[in-house]
Formats: sequence, structure tokens, C-alpha cells
Amino acid sequence: MTGILAGLRIVEGSAFIAAPLGGMTLAQLGADVIRFDDLHGGLDSDRWPVTEDGISIYWAGLNKGKRSIAVDLRSPKGREILTALITAPGENAGIFSTNMPARGWLAYEELAKKRADLIALNIVGARDGSAHVDYTVNAITGFPLVTGPVGHQGPANSVVPPWDIATAYAGAMAILAAERHRRMTGQGQKIVLPLQDIALSTVSATGYLGEAVVNKVDRPRLGNEIFGTFGRDFKTRDGRWVMICMFSDRHVDALSAAGGFKDAFAAIEKNTGVDLKSDAGRWNARAELVAVIEPWVAALTADEVSAVLKKAGALWAPYQSFRELATDKEAVQDNPLFTVIEQPGIGRYPVAASPLQFGAVDRLPPQPAPRLGQHTDEILSSILGLPAHEIAKLHDDKVVGGPHS
Amino acid sequence: MTGILAGLRIVEGSAFIAAPLGGMTLAQLGADVIRFDDLHGGLDSDRWPVTEDGISIYWAGLNKGKRSIAVDLRSPKGREILTALITAPGENAGIFSTNMPARGWLAYEELAKKRADLIALNIVGARDGSAHVDYTVNAITGFPLVTGPVGHQGPANSVVPPWDIATAYAGAMAILAAERHRRMTGQGQKIVLPLQDIALSTVSATGYLGEAVVNKVDRPRLGNEIFGTFGRDFKTRDGRWVMICMFSDRHVDALSAAGGFKDAFAAIEKNTGVDLKSDAGRWNARAELVAVIEPWVAALTADEVSAVLKKAGALWAPYQSFRELATDKEAVQDNPLFTVIEQPGIGRYPVAASPLQFGAVDRLPPQPAPRLGQHTDEILSSILGLPAHEIAKLHDDKVVGGPHS
Repeated sequence: MTGILAGLRIVEGSAFIAAPLGGMTLAQLGADVIRFDDLHGGLDSDRWPVTEDGISIYWAGLNKGKRSIAVDLRSPKGREILTALITAPGENAGIFSTNMPARGWLAYEELAKKRADLIALNIVGARDGSAHVDYTVNAITGFPLVTGPVGHQGPANSVVPPWDIATAYAGAMAILAAERHRRMTGQGQKIVLPLQDIALSTVSATGYLGEAVVNKVDRPRLGNEIFGTFGRDFKTRDGRWVMICMFSDRHVDALSAAGGFKDAFAAIEKNTGVDLKSDAGRWNARAELVAVIEPWVAALTADEVSAVLKKAGALWAPYQSFRELATDKEAVQDNPLFTVIEQPGIGRYPVAASPLQFGAVDRLPPQPAPRLGQHTDEILSSILGLPAHEIAKLHDDKVVGGPHS
Repeated sequence: MTGILAGLRIVEGSAFIAAPLGGMTLAQLGADVIRFDDLHGGLDSDRWPVTEDGISIYWAGLNKGKRSIAVDLRSPKGREILTALITAPGENAGIFSTNMPARGWLAYEELAKKRADLIALNIVGARDGSAHVDYTVNAITGFPLVTGPVGHQGPANSVVPPWDIATAYAGAMAILAAERHRRMTGQGQKIVLPLQDIALSTVSATGYLGEAVVNKVDRPRLGNEIFGTFGRDFKTRDGRWVMICMFSDRHVDALSAAGGFKDAFAAIEKNTGVDLKSDAGRWNARAELVAVIEPWVAALTADEVSAVLKKAGALWAPYQSFRELATDKEAVQDNPLFTVIEQPGIGRYPVAASPLQFGAVDRLPPQPAPRLGQHTDEILSSILGLPAHEIAKLHDDKVVGGPHS
């Protein structure tokens, strides 16, 4: 089985989420992604969640299907080896992705001396190179002050790191765009991707910045309501929650059929003068809609309300915990996205492949993350052509690490 | 000026965020992205936020730099025109992106009869084709039950639509991966991308699912604290908030220098036995760290604390509103990402270009979003080669819409 990106090789110097997830995205599509780390592992090697024995489940999740080489990043010889690896020949090689400070020996300008058509993706915090993480970027966007329950004072942070995730995919896309350019022109290049600019461009794209400037308002904190149409959470008789939305005519009809709301919805339209088939109408009559839907959901168990909403084709979903998700038949257990694999040091659990299904190739099953330095020897041998005795010496000199026989 | 993707053409049938943002991502890198809509606009044409006159700021944000063609989607002639547009010849054309139901005349199988090497990206809700939006996908992931302040009962939805945004970039990447494959093999293909699978693969990648299965725990709701290291919000003397994090040794030293915490941090290490230079140490001593940092921030104004944190090189950020962001010098006013442009019907406001900076080309300045059908005539003429009298007849027959002279 080969993935859509089979043959492409990316060397990655990374930590945390954005760069590792970007590399894993390419690895799960068949690219050979080699992550290098210091002999003692990267900044993220012990990142929580960890097992009882302290093995990072987080690291395993973000580095699946990559190869790992461990090198003393402070030794001149180690740096020489990695420079040779990053700039190794081959029309599908010569691609470097990093969110480490790309200075000194790791600067594009320095690496490009060894391979002029190098492609280097530098993920940075802000455009001036200053350090930022998802949480600090998110603080300035405006989102934390409108997230969380109505009446809450102060910010509510995102648990999902949206900007790291977007940066990962945007970075993977940028590598393919630059590789296309190189294929057509022979020219390599440096790509700079600031995490902060990913967030800011999204605030612009989704209309928040325009609304603030043009309408001169700050969107208020709306709790779980979806601004400008209809959607919110409802509590069931057995103390569970469901999300129910109406984004189109069809969703209005489906919910109406599910709950028997035909007369009630008609009465809302008559009393308030709104058209429930329009976004603005649903938004303006949301209190009236909640007054109809809330008691209906409250009188049913989660199982009951789920069955009837599903049958009617409504736009809805149950809220569930991570442990409930793990046993969810549709989303996980029966979803071909997931395969139960053995992750060395951690155990057997369901792990996701690429969410992308390409018609021209089968989806690659997920592979475990490597152990630190697991592929040091094979990379030194097959890509850099080092003979066994030189590899042995590099181990003896503690320039490289990983299993060695 | 030409972008890195100059020459590439994508035809898009889309609504809301995922598909339009994916297309805009490519358009802002220089691709010719043609969005088609029904004569009356798409489902998202009036989506909030809107101006006082009801013009959608949301739509304008997500469709910048595209061309627009308006066609009666229910007429056989209109469908014939769009089929011809989607399958038009050219090695850089023949790419279709949609999150509309790709059935009937819009099915890949049907379109591929006219162009065998067509690339079609079908963004779907769940893998079975059922409807889902970011909010319903998010509900099942587990995240809403751990988001929001400690003590909050029930779910807290994300205001940022993380899965739409990730799907947009993943979809843009998938198009480039398929275009690479076609360039090398001549073969087109259908790509299926379920919004739900993007979310689920991220729950897997970031360790939440593994933690639930392996450690048999549900992560508790932690408010604004970052799990497994140190980070949270602090309130200033003048009632503002700042986010302060320590992800590495360097951040510990910087914060220590900013606040004069050397002795206090040493005392924490002595009293609790933790190593503050480790993630686990900071996490386990977070209450003690907060007890040191909280009164320090509370005694300073936001301006004062910002100045000293910035000077020390700490990992921090101020929380601000959307209106404050709009006037933020560093992030918006002086950021070359933004240009103030005139969006017809809305006005002048700062709008973001692509967050990606490719060394080989200059960054394209942001372009306004089109008016509905603004480019109908030029597309019919230049791509489909229709003569003026036929275009006039299509307008007369109400098969196409948009300005016509």
C-alpha cells in the first residue's frame, strides 16, 4: 500500500502541536517524515497526558508513522549529520519543516548553501519571531472574552488548540504548494508561517474584525447559542445534553416533524412576525423557539430524544465525554478512520488514520509513533550512506542515540 | 504580482465556512477560484454578522479574491454550463471543491464522464454523508464538557469553529496532493473529507482519546489552566486579564526575572519537592505558583504588567476584545498581513491576506469578495467561449445572473 504522497521526504525539527501535526498529516498520506530530536528528546517528549509510567500519550498521538533520529544537537558532528540529512539529494527530498528557532545552522540561508533548491517551512510565534503558543495567540484574538456561559466574568480559554491545528494543516499545504513550485521551476524557498497570523486571518475571514470595525460593536458573550441563526444546548430528563441547530429550511422542517412543532412554530411566526425559514428570523425569535423546544427535550430521556431527532433528520448531536466517545460505535468503534494498534510503552487503543480519503489510493492504516532514535541507524545508513563502523563510532561518541546492535 | 499557485483553477460550490475558507486559502495564494451560486445566492449569502443594510460581513470575509458566477441551479441549461465549467480543459483546471450534497449532476462519477482526470473534493458532515456542522461535530468530541469555568454545569461550546477551519486547510492541502498525483500520473480522483473525521482524528492526535482508554479517566474541567504544565489567566489591578504561561526552562527564568520570583520559586521547589523546570513539576505545584503570581499581577495595572513581562521575554499575552484587536498596532494596524480595503456594500476596514509568506513570491494583497454573479459574463466568455448574444440570451432566460451590459 502506498499513500498519495509516497516518495516525498520531509525532515522535521519540531515540538508540541503545530509542526508535529503538520508532519504527521503528510506522514499519514504516505510521505517519509523524519523527525529529529536531541539525544534526550524534545521539549515535548514528556508532555502530558502520560501513562502511569510517565510515557507521553500526547507525543505518541502527534508523531504517528514518522521515523525518528536522535542526535546531539549541540555537537558540531551532530549538526553536520542533520544538515546532510535535510539537504540530501533527490527530487522528492530537500524539504525541512520546523517550529524550532531557525537560527544559526538551522537557518534557511545556511542550509540552502548545501542545497540551493531547499524548501524550508519555518513556523514562528508572531511575525517578528517572538515566542507564542496557541493560548497566548488566542488571548489577543477576542474569542476568550465571548466564550463560556453568559454571566461569566473574564476570559474562557479554548481547550481545543484551534490555531495549532490550523497551522499544522496550513503548513502541510504550504509545503505542497512550494513543492509544486519547485517541480515547475526548479526553485526552492523559505516559507514563514506565524501562528499569530493564522489566528488573525481567521478572525478576519469569519467576520469578527469586520463586525467590530464596521458595526462598531463587540459581539456579546452568547453562551452556547450560535450567533445569527438557531442552535444551542438542551438538557434531557436524565440530565444529559443535546445540541440542536436549524441552519436551513430543511432543518426547521425536520425539527418541527421530530417534536410536532408545526402549530407552535406557526404561532411564533404569527406572534413575532418573523420568518423561521430565514437566519435572521430564527435568531430574532430564539427565545420563543427555546420556550417550545426546551420543555419537549426536558420531558424525554437522551435515548428518546436522540432516536426521534435522528429519525427526523434534524441537525443535532449528543454531548459526550472522551470516555463515552471512545466507546461510541458510529464515531469510533465502527469508524474505519480508527484502528486499534499497539503503541510500544503505552498499550493497545484506537488510533486515527488520516481523515482524508483519496480515491486513487487506499487509506493507510495508522502506524505507531517511533521510539526516540528508533530509526537512527537505518537513516544514517540508507540516506547518508554511512558504513556500519562509522555509525558505531557515532554511538560510541554519543553523537547519535537510539537502539544500536 | 503572481501568487505561488498562479494559474491553478478551482471551481467551488460551497456554503458556510469549511469549503469557502478552503477555496479562499487557495485564492489568496494566487489560484483562480470561481465560486458558483444560485441566482438568489447560497445558503450563507445573508449569514450574520451583517451591516445595518443587511449585507453579510461574514460572506465577504470568507470569499475574498474569488470570482463569482450566478446560475439557476435547478435549470438543465444552468447545470450544463456549470458542468462545462467544472470540467473545462487545461492542465491547471478540472478541480472541483464542494460541501454541497455531491449527488446527481454534481456527483464525481457524473462529472468525470466529461473529464476523466477530474479532481473533486467532497467535504461531507459525517462519513455516511449525513449533515453535520462544526457545533454538532464538536458536541461528540468531548471538548465542550471540559471547556469553560470550573464549576460550570453542562457543555460550553466553542465560539471559534475549529473543525471548519481545520477542514478548510486540510481540504486545500488535499487538492494540492491530488494535483501533484495528477501531474505525475495523469490520474484524477475523488477526495472525501468528513468534517467529523477531522475532529475525531484531532481528538486522537492530541492524546485525549488515548488518555481516556489507557488511563481510564475523563480529563476534568480545568477552567483556564493548561493541563500538564503551567498557564492560566490573571486579573490586573485595573480589572483586565493577562494569560501567563511557562512551557520551558526559559519561560520559568523569564517570569522569575519579571516578577522577582527567584526566592519564591526556590521556596516552592524546596517545600513541595518538585522541579519547576519540568512540565510535571509546574503542573503539580500550580497552586503554589498561582499563590506567588496572582498577588503580583493584582498589584499592577495591565500596562505595567505588560511592560515588565514583555521586557523579560515571558510567554504571555493580554486578553482583549474584537474592537480592541482592531486598534492593536502590533497585531493589526502595523501588521503587513492586513490592508484596509473597500468592500463594496460594506465599507473600508482592515482585511487579512494569506498568513503564509512564500520566499519565492511577494504576498498578494487581499482582494474584496465579489458581488453575486460579478464575473458571470467574463467566465462564460473567456472560459466557455460563449459569444455575446448567447450570454445575453442566458440572462434573458434567467439561466444566469449578475451585472450584464
